[in-house]
Amino acid sequence: MSAGSATLLISCPDQRGLVAAVTQFIFQHNGNILHLDQHVDQQAAVFFMRVEWDLTGFGIARADIPTAFGLTVGNRFKMDWTLRFSDETPRMALFVSKQSHCLYDILSRWQAGEWQVAIPLIVSNHESLKPVADSFGIPFHHFAISADTKAEQERAQIDLLKAHKVEFVVLARYMQILTGQFIGAFPNRIINIHHSFLPAFAGAKPYHAAHARGVKLIGATSHYVTADLDAGPIIAQDVIPVNHKDSVSDLVRKGQDIEKLVLAQAVWHHLQNRVLVYNNKTVVFQ
Amino acid sequence: MSAGSATLLISCPDQRGLVAAVTQFIFQHNGNILHLDQHVDQQAAVFFMRVEWDLTGFGIARADIPTAFGLTVGNRFKMDWTLRFSDETPRMALFVSKQSHCLYDILSRWQAGEWQVAIPLIVSNHESLKPVADSFGIPFHHFAISADTKAEQERAQIDLLKAHKVEFVVLARYMQILTGQFIGAFPNRIINIHHSFLPAFAGAKPYHAAHARGVKLIGATSHYVTADLDAGPIIAQDVIPVNHKDSVSDLVRKGQDIEKLVLAQAVWHHLQNRVLVYNNKTVVFQ
Amino acid sequence: MSAGSATLLISCPDQRGLVAAVTQFIFQHNGNILHLDQHVDQQAAVFFMRVEWDLTGFGIARADIPTAFGLTVGNRFKMDWTLRFSDETPRMALFVSKQSHCLYDILSRWQAGEWQVAIPLIVSNHESLKPVADSFGIPFHHFAISADTKAEQERAQIDLLKAHKVEFVVLARYMQILTGQFIGAFPNRIINIHHSFLPAFAGAKPYHAAHARGVKLIGATSHYVTADLDAGPIIAQDVIPVNHKDSVSDLVRKGQDIEKLVLAQAVWHHLQNRVLVYNNKTVVFQ
Amino acid sequence: MSAGSATLLISCPDQRGLVAAVTQFIFQHNGNILHLDQHVDQQAAVFFMRVEWDLTGFGIARADIPTAFGLTVGNRFKMDWTLRFSDETPRMALFVSKQSHCLYDILSRWQAGEWQVAIPLIVSNHESLKPVADSFGIPFHHFAISADTKAEQERAQIDLLKAHKVEFVVLARYMQILTGQFIGAFPNRIINIHHSFLPAFAGAKPYHAAHARGVKLIGATSHYVTADLDAGPIIAQDVIPVNHKDSVSDLVRKGQDIEKLVLAQAVWHHLQNRVLVYNNKTVVFQ
Repeated sequence: MSAGSATLLISCPDQRGLVAAVTQFIFQHNGNILHLDQHVDQQAAVFFMRVEWDLTGFGIARADIPTAFGLTVGNRFKMDWTLRFSDETPRMALFVSKQSHCLYDILSRWQAGEWQVAIPLIVSNHESLKPVADSFGIPFHHFAISADTKAEQERAQIDLLKAHKVEFVVLARYMQILTGQFIGAFPNRIINIHHSFLPAFAGAKPYHAAHARGVKLIGATSHYVTADLDAGPIIAQDVIPVNHKDSVSDLVRKGQDIEKLVLAQAVWHHLQNRVLVYNNKTVVFQ
Repeated sequence: MSAGSATLLISCPDQRGLVAAVTQFIFQHNGNILHLDQHVDQQAAVFFMRVEWDLTGFGIARADIPTAFGLTVGNRFKMDWTLRFSDETPRMALFVSKQSHCLYDILSRWQAGEWQVAIPLIVSNHESLKPVADSFGIPFHHFAISADTKAEQERAQIDLLKAHKVEFVVLARYMQILTGQFIGAFPNRIINIHHSFLPAFAGAKPYHAAHARGVKLIGATSHYVTADLDAGPIIAQDVIPVNHKDSVSDLVRKGQDIEKLVLAQAVWHHLQNRVLVYNNKTVVFQ
Repeated sequence: MSAGSATLLISCPDQRGLVAAVTQFIFQHNGNILHLDQHVDQQAAVFFMRVEWDLTGFGIARADIPTAFGLTVGNRFKMDWTLRFSDETPRMALFVSKQSHCLYDILSRWQAGEWQVAIPLIVSNHESLKPVADSFGIPFHHFAISADTKAEQERAQIDLLKAHKVEFVVLARYMQILTGQFIGAFPNRIINIHHSFLPAFAGAKPYHAAHARGVKLIGATSHYVTADLDAGPIIAQDVIPVNHKDSVSDLVRKGQDIEKLVLAQAVWHHLQNRVLVYNNKTVVFQ
Repeated sequence: MSAGSATLLISCPDQRGLVAAVTQFIFQHNGNILHLDQHVDQQAAVFFMRVEWDLTGFGIARADIPTAFGLTVGNRFKMDWTLRFSDETPRMALFVSKQSHCLYDILSRWQAGEWQVAIPLIVSNHESLKPVADSFGIPFHHFAISADTKAEQERAQIDLLKAHKVEFVVLARYMQILTGQFIGAFPNRIINIHHSFLPAFAGAKPYHAAHARGVKLIGATSHYVTADLDAGPIIAQDVIPVNHKDSVSDLVRKGQDIEKLVLAQAVWHHLQNRVLVYNNKTVVFQ
């Protein structure tokens, strides 16, 4: 039986000896590195690293690794670090409104086993996608939202997510702007898909704006949600060509194809513990 | 010997019978249609058409086609139209500053015969690219430009271009903002390349802005120059992926590859008489 | 109430006057052309055309258009032509095996109303995807297939499709090679998705072959099925980048994203009556 | 003054402790790692690594690094390794025939300082591109080649390249098949551009073959030359869309744009010491 692997995601002030210290730690305890990637932002003098190693024969019990790493390496270099094990299954909540294309795309990946993730619940401000949730056997929670009830409903949503031990949230074309209250409960843990190549066409009706401007490409951008609308750290982006024959509804149709792919790509990176956020930007280790 | 072909570019208020009238005109005079494309902007109720036909055996003398077409078709339908012959060689001026990548790309296409175009002169606000112009045997004109001299220098440039019968201008990374005076002398006849996927990052230093925002794609946009900076009708756009490892100078290096391709694509469409402008957008017949 | 539109797809030997004749026919009977595209293969001297016109106020009853067009235009120019009306809903059968990604992608488009198509049945050589068919309310037919039973089962499939008035078949990762018997029953009416950029890596296990060769792009190709395996007329193709870090299973995962998009693109073109086949190639009017 | 950086490219049988050993070596001698990437081919159990470190304050004199690294790390782990310094300028020969697009693309990058490379000479089997070489001030050597003279001319070419201390060769649309004699003189040191997405359309006239097959994408592939024609390790590939309107000459024109970009990308990777070859495939560290 495989002992699985462990993945460390690290950021800290840059200095000599960081890679040596981390890899020495792994080697001393008989770990075999599977993947290692690092990056130094020379301007900001910040060091980033992702390392994954095979736990077979590793000399430290799984539960003791955090303490051991923190004491011998992490603290010494003032590292921010997180440790994940490959056999842990992260818990994700899906938020949707009325459009189903991203929802189906995500659920079919989950059902086929493409993604190792648990989806304990789907949340929506409309009831129309409940049958989809039902067909995949996932509990569906409807929260009607108005300007008056938003704060209260968000509190209820947060409670619900906490009760289900949800670790991160995917907004799969959820057409509500989240308040700081909700965003603060899941910092850099809410992944949105916006239907434009940000920073162009932030805000409402980007396809209308793209059509009016006469662009020859339309895009989709997946990013972590921050207090600034459509201005959070970008995880993934893609575009497709359009031309003068395309009406706004053609842009909507064509755009949905990249919306679902770009969102899936961002969630995949997140699930693989490949994303670090700093300076409102991301490091995405490939 | 081939008699060559003629190309009509037409726009007019939409109504029934437009294609029939134009194609009937060509057929009656024994023309053979090589390419025909049309488009109706249903919202604006505007009709656009490009038709190219073989002149072999055509029943109207070349010089008489405009009158004949205008009298029997053009006027009847209130058409805006232009007529070009395949054996006419359009005359293009290149404006450059210090960067050579677009200049070399264009000149090597011209030299290899990829484009049927005459380049009677190259204009620059710096002297550094004169040797490139020399090596291709194209006269190079230096116009030093300051805030004080710009208006005067532009007038001299316009005179020079008119004297050389220049029909359109390509700004191949020309780092000066043209005034309305110059733009008005070549309406929808000045093609610029901007190093971002417009409308994102208009104005100065787009690669710096893209780097600061942390986008995962950078772009290039070729457009006709209008009075609004970087806001004219878009002819062509493209993007390439970037990642967290790319510094601003990496973005510059990578971006130059799409700058030159996107600009070349736009010039190619223009040379092929494929571009119609309306509503600050383009119809580009493929 | 809209009277809808009619679309003619035409091919014939090239000669003067073809576009004029067709558009004159439409204009004389008071039709308004919405889209027109034509193409001449100069080498083969074959003419291709697609024209769609608004039937509002059209002077010929819908049922009489074929006769009228045939008598006055079609026969005269020896045209092969088909006529479709925008309010007719084509009938499509889906063939699947065990992989669900293309199936979900197609069904979610259908359910969302993105495609105007009827799906009277889903056919499979395995039972595993029956629950998916059930959740979308589409009858699922299982045909176990062995070398011994294939001919007989195909006959039963053909009968079933004919009974359901199926017009075309989509092989959504159907892992059986069809015999000439089945292909002959739906000539240029069976759309397959092959998981490589054909003609590279035709046949079995293309991702393994791509991995062994060390390509930097993997592709997907949608084509009409002919007697030659993976050699039919190509409708759509796309690729995505891969690198040395990708194992075969990474290629499979990444490739599925373009498999479903490329197949959807091909079906969309087919549904829009945009595809003409000749010389084992396609004309796809955009 | 910057001391520059050193880059190690390493491959060896996989085992525990490899990254730790290399990074420990660098750290012990006071090197600061700028970039590190590694890869393990799990199937083949081969380890690959690229590490670049800042030499400022490094404790070993530049000339002594090879011995020091070999003795303490390289030999112990049976590593194949190469060491490069950032201020060394590699020496590249260009081989061309009659087409100039790749030649201009490369020379303009070199002239603009985009690439740190020396180009001591250009070799051709035709004289037509001599003026281009002249305009960039690079010696041009003409070797007329026939079946009878090829072996002899290749020997003369090899002598010439050796005399100029050429380290690697770029075939910038050189339309001659090299013999094993020449290839053997520069193993994995000859970069070719082939005008198709290999393995499709290897050999002569790939655009004709692509047109005949009716593909919807055409490609370009840059690879190291081996004894098997167009079958060497692939470094970079790209494609662009084509359609039924494109004649063979359109494919040639469109294809040249990706030929030059893909070749430039491959040369860039090579110049950056990012490419390792094994098993007729490449690891390209990004």
